[in-house]
Amino acid sequence: MARAIDINCDMGESFGRWTLGNDAALMPLITSANIACGWHAGDPATMRETVRLAVEHGVGIGAHVAFPDLLGFGRRRMDVSPEEVYEYTLYQAGALQAFAQAAGSRLQHVKPHGAFYVMCSQNQELCEALCRAIKALGDDVALVMMGEIAPRAAAAVGVPHAAEGYVDLNYNAQGQLVLERRKQAWDPDEVARRAEELALEGRIRTVDGTDLHAQVQTICIHGDAPNAPDIARRVRERLTQAGVEVRPLREVLARR
Amino acid sequence: MARAIDINCDMGESFGRWTLGNDAALMPLITSANIACGWHAGDPATMRETVRLAVEHGVGIGAHVAFPDLLGFGRRRMDVSPEEVYEYTLYQAGALQAFAQAAGSRLQHVKPHGAFYVMCSQNQELCEALCRAIKALGDDVALVMMGEIAPRAAAAVGVPHAAEGYVDLNYNAQGQLVLERRKQAWDPDEVARRAEELALEGRIRTVDGTDLHAQVQTICIHGDAPNAPDIARRVRERLTQAGVEVRPLREVLARR
Amino acid sequence: MARAIDINCDMGESFGRWTLGNDAALMPLITSANIACGWHAGDPATMRETVRLAVEHGVGIGAHVAFPDLLGFGRRRMDVSPEEVYEYTLYQAGALQAFAQAAGSRLQHVKPHGAFYVMCSQNQELCEALCRAIKALGDDVALVMMGEIAPRAAAAVGVPHAAEGYVDLNYNAQGQLVLERRKQAWDPDEVARRAEELALEGRIRTVDGTDLHAQVQTICIHGDAPNAPDIARRVRERLTQAGVEVRPLREVLARR
Amino acid sequence: MARAIDINCDMGESFGRWTLGNDAALMPLITSANIACGWHAGDPATMRETVRLAVEHGVGIGAHVAFPDLLGFGRRRMDVSPEEVYEYTLYQAGALQAFAQAAGSRLQHVKPHGAFYVMCSQNQELCEALCRAIKALGDDVALVMMGEIAPRAAAAVGVPHAAEGYVDLNYNAQGQLVLERRKQAWDPDEVARRAEELALEGRIRTVDGTDLHAQVQTICIHGDAPNAPDIARRVRERLTQAGVEVRPLREVLARR
Repeated sequence: MARAIDINCDMGESFGRWTLGNDAALMPLITSANIACGWHAGDPATMRETVRLAVEHGVGIGAHVAFPDLLGFGRRRMDVSPEEVYEYTLYQAGALQAFAQAAGSRLQHVKPHGAFYVMCSQNQELCEALCRAIKALGDDVALVMMGEIAPRAAAAVGVPHAAEGYVDLNYNAQGQLVLERRKQAWDPDEVARRAEELALEGRIRTVDGTDLHAQVQTICIHGDAPNAPDIARRVRERLTQAGVEVRPLREVLARR
Repeated sequence: MARAIDINCDMGESFGRWTLGNDAALMPLITSANIACGWHAGDPATMRETVRLAVEHGVGIGAHVAFPDLLGFGRRRMDVSPEEVYEYTLYQAGALQAFAQAAGSRLQHVKPHGAFYVMCSQNQELCEALCRAIKALGDDVALVMMGEIAPRAAAAVGVPHAAEGYVDLNYNAQGQLVLERRKQAWDPDEVARRAEELALEGRIRTVDGTDLHAQVQTICIHGDAPNAPDIARRVRERLTQAGVEVRPLREVLARR
Repeated sequence: MARAIDINCDMGESFGRWTLGNDAALMPLITSANIACGWHAGDPATMRETVRLAVEHGVGIGAHVAFPDLLGFGRRRMDVSPEEVYEYTLYQAGALQAFAQAAGSRLQHVKPHGAFYVMCSQNQELCEALCRAIKALGDDVALVMMGEIAPRAAAAVGVPHAAEGYVDLNYNAQGQLVLERRKQAWDPDEVARRAEELALEGRIRTVDGTDLHAQVQTICIHGDAPNAPDIARRVRERLTQAGVEVRPLREVLARR
Repeated sequence: MARAIDINCDMGESFGRWTLGNDAALMPLITSANIACGWHAGDPATMRETVRLAVEHGVGIGAHVAFPDLLGFGRRRMDVSPEEVYEYTLYQAGALQAFAQAAGSRLQHVKPHGAFYVMCSQNQELCEALCRAIKALGDDVALVMMGEIAPRAAAAVGVPHAAEGYVDLNYNAQGQLVLERRKQAWDPDEVARRAEELALEGRIRTVDGTDLHAQVQTICIHGDAPNAPDIARRVRERLTQAGVEVRPLREVLARR
């Protein structure tokens, strides 16, 4: 199975006077950052600082594009057309691209946020609109998204796709994530064990004890868990000990 | 004097349900468009459509960056630091750059809007911060701005600079523009005459009858004048008849 | 049937630099105004001026509360909880209430806008949350809403309810409004005829020729029709000639 | 001197997903709350909860009105006209008034926030516009503001005025507050000593050792100090021990 895998994490979710997350502690431990672009969180100063931090640690830069819903943190479904999905993605990822470029880097991937993620992952037309925007941003910019629609939409448009898996959340028997209202602190060793299983054997245990099978290029760690740095550190160590290289997504995809 | 000159105009200032301006009529008549980037006006759909129209007519694409003040249309001074000027410019112009790129084009210039323009044109530190953002967007992206500080700041940072002149507004004896609370319809022939004088002789008559001397690479036409298309058409005709080529700013600067 | 009826119209939908609608021409012709509260349209200056105009013409003041979606003009469904419906209504209608009070008047009614209207009219739990907010604003503030859920929710909470009917739009055979993508100019005489039929006989002809039966206290006129003032004038004249008094909603409800 | 004094504190400055401050710990210790109204901080859900908490603890409810600058937390000067000051205040305080009313209470005072405070306290025309909005909200709603302009403007308009003093910040020799970039933890005993001196003797020691003389009806405690609850508790205890009743502003003003 995977001999190289990426660890992605949401970053840059502060806004103006309000701080959120623990970016400085997490950035050295991950390999790809999904950076908020000002629509659900983030602002130009935060984007600049988060990009700087990512570049400093060799972390791949991703646009965490979202609905225009600061008040709802991008978590509420909004009726949008494929045209709007295309335009919203281009706007936000374009803004982030400029910060990446100013820091001597460039966009590695796009991963939608919250309800924008869910809606695109469930609707092929929306997902293809998303992919068209990604393609316009650069030929090697990848879509990060789980589920069955994303790889089909990405292939149809000609955009690299990376499947992602979650190891600090439960999956139910239908293969759906069981969201936690408030992210709980999971045992780092248990999360790391699940990460190894996912990376090396391509399977993840559901809450009812059966196994899901998935080949993923990137593992998502929730930065809002109380012990997120511990988890990221333990996951990274265990994967490395098991012979899996933890590398930014661009490199993982290049080896595929 | 100038054998080639650019005509720039503010564009894409609709927002959501609200329309403003007469972009479709003006675009064929101008050579550079200052396109609103969503902070004082404009939204992703409007940006996309305005860029499409500019590309269709061979018009140079400029970012009309502004303060985050939709309610005040970017016309109110806000206390901002040089850091904020840099970040706000990068964000907005980056977003527009993505639309330009998606349409097979790229950013030609940045022209700040409203109070952001005025403050940057009066403060060298702010203006240099603006130029650093422009430089990060591409080596040949130009700053469009009148006054004495802009060329100095642009030179210090290493950004191409284009001086602009106004021919549909009065200048007072101190060389300052006399703003009209509501843009009036000027006589197109008179405006065209002033444009020729400015382009060929580098001078512009003030309200008290003296002459200002200025070498400009671009002439600004106000799109919110009731007869803006007539004015743009007449200016363009007269300049052409006088042997001045009306060309997008990038070409004008390349010939300098 | 109705010997008194109200004519309501959306008002105050300008925002900052952008103007929309023809409030000055319509205000003398209607009896209740649904005034935008800054979330889908409207701003403090526009609210103040619209309230002033309403008071000048003896027009009832209503809060046109909406989703926080300026970009989408409040027309897009958003996932909201009953708590949010309550809080959003209280916030917006409270702000308008202050302008009404400052002008020597007070709130007469609340009519949700766009997708907020549709969602509340289809979901009793949301509609009751809306009504609880209305009740907190004053015991005689009424809910204006069509459909079967609104009167039930209003009764459950103890809020006056006014049913409304549309005479410048078609209803399909299921009794649903046939929205026009862009509001068309209807024949004023035809609209006036439909208004009389609705007011006096409580029926409205659907597109397939059958009759809907409804007792309404207020008729909605679309202010964005190209000939909206002509329509409002003709409707008002015809109703008056037919012996129906056209009065602000509070008076209509008081006579019920 | 003062036998009764109020302690006011900024409250409700969370926004959506972001929390700020320690409202639950502070509310039992203060007597008046300046509640953010959604323009620099706060949102409808936060306003509702903060009002609920204030009512539960018998704390006076004040509108903390601000510039429309969420990104800058209302701390940046913006060019505004007296008309805008009036309208912005009416809008925000009106929204909060509705929450107060829904909770069975009503507005006690208005205290502008950040740059809005500073600009109104320095410009009589702006301050009178502010007072006109306050007067429209109710005859006994008070303006809380330090400086010499506020009492004059309040008197001219006929609005109750409460002078406030700061005991957890330094004053320079000119009587101006020395702001701390990041609010420091002061010694609670020292702050309490200053509070007693201010309440009973009407004086406050400046950084150069001279005394300012001021008669204040309310003392402001900074909620963003790391030890704000300790400070508020100690101030309240010491004032009480010294025979000064700590009461909501409305009661303090009624005894004057």
